[in-house]
Amino acid sequence: MTKQIAILGASGYTGAELVRLIATHPGMEIAALGANSKAGQSMARVFPHLRHLDLPDLVKIDEIDFAGIDLCFCALPHKTSQEVISALPKDLKIVDLSADFRLRDPADYEKWYGNPHSAVELQKEAVYGLTEFYRDEIKSARLVAGTGCNAATGQYILRPLIAAGVIGLEDIILDLKCGVSGAGRSLKENLLHAELSEGYHAYAVGGTHRHLGEFDQEFSKVAGRDVRIQFTPHLIPANRGILATGYVKGEAEAIHDVLAAQYGNEPFIELLPMGEVPSTRHVRGSNFCHVGVVADRIPGKTIVIAALDNLTKGSSGQALQNANLMLNIQETEGLMLAPVFP
Amino acid sequence: MTKQIAILGASGYTGAELVRLIATHPGMEIAALGANSKAGQSMARVFPHLRHLDLPDLVKIDEIDFAGIDLCFCALPHKTSQEVISALPKDLKIVDLSADFRLRDPADYEKWYGNPHSAVELQKEAVYGLTEFYRDEIKSARLVAGTGCNAATGQYILRPLIAAGVIGLEDIILDLKCGVSGAGRSLKENLLHAELSEGYHAYAVGGTHRHLGEFDQEFSKVAGRDVRIQFTPHLIPANRGILATGYVKGEAEAIHDVLAAQYGNEPFIELLPMGEVPSTRHVRGSNFCHVGVVADRIPGKTIVIAALDNLTKGSSGQALQNANLMLNIQETEGLMLAPVFP
Amino acid sequence: MTKQIAILGASGYTGAELVRLIATHPGMEIAALGANSKAGQSMARVFPHLRHLDLPDLVKIDEIDFAGIDLCFCALPHKTSQEVISALPKDLKIVDLSADFRLRDPADYEKWYGNPHSAVELQKEAVYGLTEFYRDEIKSARLVAGTGCNAATGQYILRPLIAAGVIGLEDIILDLKCGVSGAGRSLKENLLHAELSEGYHAYAVGGTHRHLGEFDQEFSKVAGRDVRIQFTPHLIPANRGILATGYVKGEAEAIHDVLAAQYGNEPFIELLPMGEVPSTRHVRGSNFCHVGVVADRIPGKTIVIAALDNLTKGSSGQALQNANLMLNIQETEGLMLAPVFP
Amino acid sequence: MTKQIAILGASGYTGAELVRLIATHPGMEIAALGANSKAGQSMARVFPHLRHLDLPDLVKIDEIDFAGIDLCFCALPHKTSQEVISALPKDLKIVDLSADFRLRDPADYEKWYGNPHSAVELQKEAVYGLTEFYRDEIKSARLVAGTGCNAATGQYILRPLIAAGVIGLEDIILDLKCGVSGAGRSLKENLLHAELSEGYHAYAVGGTHRHLGEFDQEFSKVAGRDVRIQFTPHLIPANRGILATGYVKGEAEAIHDVLAAQYGNEPFIELLPMGEVPSTRHVRGSNFCHVGVVADRIPGKTIVIAALDNLTKGSSGQALQNANLMLNIQETEGLMLAPVFP
Repeated sequence: MTKQIAILGASGYTGAELVRLIATHPGMEIAALGANSKAGQSMARVFPHLRHLDLPDLVKIDEIDFAGIDLCFCALPHKTSQEVISALPKDLKIVDLSADFRLRDPADYEKWYGNPHSAVELQKEAVYGLTEFYRDEIKSARLVAGTGCNAATGQYILRPLIAAGVIGLEDIILDLKCGVSGAGRSLKENLLHAELSEGYHAYAVGGTHRHLGEFDQEFSKVAGRDVRIQFTPHLIPANRGILATGYVKGEAEAIHDVLAAQYGNEPFIELLPMGEVPSTRHVRGSNFCHVGVVADRIPGKTIVIAALDNLTKGSSGQALQNANLMLNIQETEGLMLAPVFP
Repeated sequence: MTKQIAILGASGYTGAELVRLIATHPGMEIAALGANSKAGQSMARVFPHLRHLDLPDLVKIDEIDFAGIDLCFCALPHKTSQEVISALPKDLKIVDLSADFRLRDPADYEKWYGNPHSAVELQKEAVYGLTEFYRDEIKSARLVAGTGCNAATGQYILRPLIAAGVIGLEDIILDLKCGVSGAGRSLKENLLHAELSEGYHAYAVGGTHRHLGEFDQEFSKVAGRDVRIQFTPHLIPANRGILATGYVKGEAEAIHDVLAAQYGNEPFIELLPMGEVPSTRHVRGSNFCHVGVVADRIPGKTIVIAALDNLTKGSSGQALQNANLMLNIQETEGLMLAPVFP
Repeated sequence: MTKQIAILGASGYTGAELVRLIATHPGMEIAALGANSKAGQSMARVFPHLRHLDLPDLVKIDEIDFAGIDLCFCALPHKTSQEVISALPKDLKIVDLSADFRLRDPADYEKWYGNPHSAVELQKEAVYGLTEFYRDEIKSARLVAGTGCNAATGQYILRPLIAAGVIGLEDIILDLKCGVSGAGRSLKENLLHAELSEGYHAYAVGGTHRHLGEFDQEFSKVAGRDVRIQFTPHLIPANRGILATGYVKGEAEAIHDVLAAQYGNEPFIELLPMGEVPSTRHVRGSNFCHVGVVADRIPGKTIVIAALDNLTKGSSGQALQNANLMLNIQETEGLMLAPVFP
Repeated sequence: MTKQIAILGASGYTGAELVRLIATHPGMEIAALGANSKAGQSMARVFPHLRHLDLPDLVKIDEIDFAGIDLCFCALPHKTSQEVISALPKDLKIVDLSADFRLRDPADYEKWYGNPHSAVELQKEAVYGLTEFYRDEIKSARLVAGTGCNAATGQYILRPLIAAGVIGLEDIILDLKCGVSGAGRSLKENLLHAELSEGYHAYAVGGTHRHLGEFDQEFSKVAGRDVRIQFTPHLIPANRGILATGYVKGEAEAIHDVLAAQYGNEPFIELLPMGEVPSTRHVRGSNFCHVGVVADRIPGKTIVIAALDNLTKGSSGQALQNANLMLNIQETEGLMLAPVFP
């Protein structure tokens, strides 16, 4: 039976990406689209690329009747998200794409996001949405917290290595290159085309990016001790894509073996043959993540690289993958779209 | 029953786009991939974005056993295409994406392409593949000639207007803006990123672009007299997309009415409300074509604009749409993917 | 003796471009930079690419002492500009880059810009800043009104042809392709990189673009009768550049001859050999304008194309060229920088 | 007296960039342009952006009369360069932009470039062209070897720190992001716009990039012991720019102090205030290099970042700076052009 879906925050890029993916999903139907600032408009006006679809108009969130809704995606800004979700029916299945339920410790949340958490009970209930590592918990969860897009990319390469103990924990460096859409559709001077095109730079340098909260939490958990990595994101003049270059101390063969064992049966994580490296252009618009391993010329040092699409595998595709699990639909349903190249 | 598909010329962009679309088509299976220059390589090596698919390796075309093949897409260069197709089984259904069978008159072919046609009998048999206008012929055709990508775009806006007699035939101007992938994957200095990015220019100015052969043929046919338009393509620094700006003499209301009647039931042609204009970004990666009509401030003059993705609706998507018809599959199967934005 | 220069509106793109050009101008020195919204900041903070220069900080406009200023560039929004300039010393030489003094008839101004003109006396005094056609008036002007960037480009190809009577006046079409920086540094959703990159579209279709006011005024003036052209701008994903494709009725040879005579001695207008076409990439960052002429296959029709950089020859370079004339400096001083390619 | 200049390899991007810079250099005149593959063509045909200049046509290199030439820039491919320079007059001043004379040890050259060196005597004579560190030697040199563009960028941040002993030598990581023009104008599938635009990837991963030969040589020299760093370049969809992100062990304050002392009087190296980071967009088209230092949240770790334009400060601008020194012209002459933004 077709599941009825609501999307809150449908006027942003992750909301539109959810609609794009669900449009060809045989087991889901979009029943409500919430977007307070653009309420009253048709989706065709807000996102003309979706005009061929028969979609409900955007409405204010409190106008939505959640009675017949099977699952609700929440693609709202952090802080707003926890307030909105607190007011939703307590038995509604929810996949949240904001940062509000990613960190388990309220103190960590306040440290990284600057405001105290107002829905601590929900935070306890939430399951961290990194599908490949929390699959069983997600299947039975009511509230799943989508990961940060950078946090997902970094974990795909580092998490299994830390868990397996094949790399040193002291000098891990993650140098990320992120596409522009990760910053969302907000009006900021530094996101204008004329500012960004043909140039690139690092930001949040020195360990201030909020996704570090997730790295600290998850890497420390699997290591059984505190782990702190260095993480530098860079903004690249491309609309989609995250490329994570990880510098680790460990043997390339052992690292490749661990990743092969981890991802051998995963439908969306493609480990490349030893020595090959991924490119963001080869995952664009898809739910796939490509991972490569190369030994450095200096013995004992290895470079591990992952590429994914921040809007798909990094957020909305991951959210749909988790929703499939929560609704007992085949995990890959609606997500096997091939990347768009060129 | 799943249809067995062969693709010749699979190492080019239109070949890759066919694979991308067929990958999620429930009624087709790729049985053979031909590409002489890269024969012996895996598709994952030639197009890493397709590495998640279980595809046959590339082989030389004469190594393919066509016995079990239901339909063959031929995405080869013109001239090569007519030679290869001449050697294929005479009962094999074929969708050709080259220019070889678009023009009915061999003299026209030689005039525009510079070489005499070597398969005149096939040329007679071929049906012109502009689906919305040749649907019935395509259903029963053995050999369908895919249109030029610019030729399709221009016809979507001008053809119904010429046929309906609502525009003057003397001063039609078509100013096109084309993405880079339309030029294919060939090694030319003027296709390098460093040459193209951040700049744009007109080419084939003055009426020398080969797709004019199609405009002349088709517009004259529907007008019942010789029609010659002006056509200037421009190369734009974007990978996908064609935007056609048509300047015509006629009343905007009458023009919009004709287009509404023509496309009201078409699954892929979206006529925008009067006064709205399309953008290539809203059709990227999809089989949709958006059409807009705006009255000029000068009475009696109207601007008609179409946007489509040259690799999808302009070539490989059109080819698949035609193949569906030829194989008695639902016309939209595998083609309802929403555009990728941003 | 070095001339003292003030720039009002220095935090926008045309302001920054003025600073870039004046930085290597041997006869000018920047004495004051006004920008109300960013007053108090250093230019290095607002435009880090200018950090190597020894520049005054940004100040509020009413804090500037104009006593020692020889010439003031005014790069403010329209409407603001006429208010600010009204309050400046009456003997100060001014080059205004806004739209406020381009149209001679206050009724025309109100029609195109929506507000009544509040400085009609200044409007009468202003000289239209299309250097190649108003050179003598500019030399002795106190207030010069910089042209619209699109208006300059279109006039470079059409104005001499209309004046010489070598083209028909009824069916002139100007199809423009504009880079993103022409829209300035304002915060609009449709100027975000994620919205613009990899897509393009027409805007202000049907004769609503404000630069038509300039075309109407100037073309009617040189024709000695009312002339109304069709003009459709398109937004292209590139930061700089305007490409104007003009469709006219007239003989290509005669047209080329008129342009050769007009521009033979001009330092910045380069007429290409018959049949060659310009590209925006070949004028980027420079004050040059390249012009090409091609005969259409239809007898009596010709395509004329111009390319220039909207921020340089289209606005700030033009402004500096005019300032040189007003200050009795060699016209080309500071403007012979070669284009930046690639 | 104006110096007479020859440029060999003028049909490539670094050759064109030399012409662009010299075009406004008051003390130099281009007397000969050599380019074997395009000999006989005008520069305006090969590089239309230079059409406003009065330049000699391209000729075969052996047709150039070097009698009146004061200095010759050699912008040829490596291996070709050593052959050509061997045949030039022995007293001709030469700035070579190839890799042929960067490495002092012929065995190092053969190891990194794959062929034995055929001009070992010239190699001994050559001075390494990193201006800020070899200024005195360059002033009196006859043959200066331009550095690799990546090698220059990396040295600007790491070299003074290694020399001063303020960073550890064991775990230095250099993660570079390079624009497309660094790969030159050669016809390779992976340099096509449709391949590169909107995607990015690492290449030469694991320590195989040839510029490591320069890092090894120079860093070991200043350290007084063998130093081997990790170096991973990434190809970014932008035409110009190198951004080098260096990860070092050392105190940020000490590092900033060393760089301030090193570059305080340098005309082209701009050290940003502590905590600020550079962007390639702010040096585009200029000879400036911006350097930033940020302390990591992990004590004792620091990120040092440099941005420059690979075609200007990374190659042709550096070459002209060195030529000025060799010809006893002011070092900054012709090089103070402000960056082009946006």
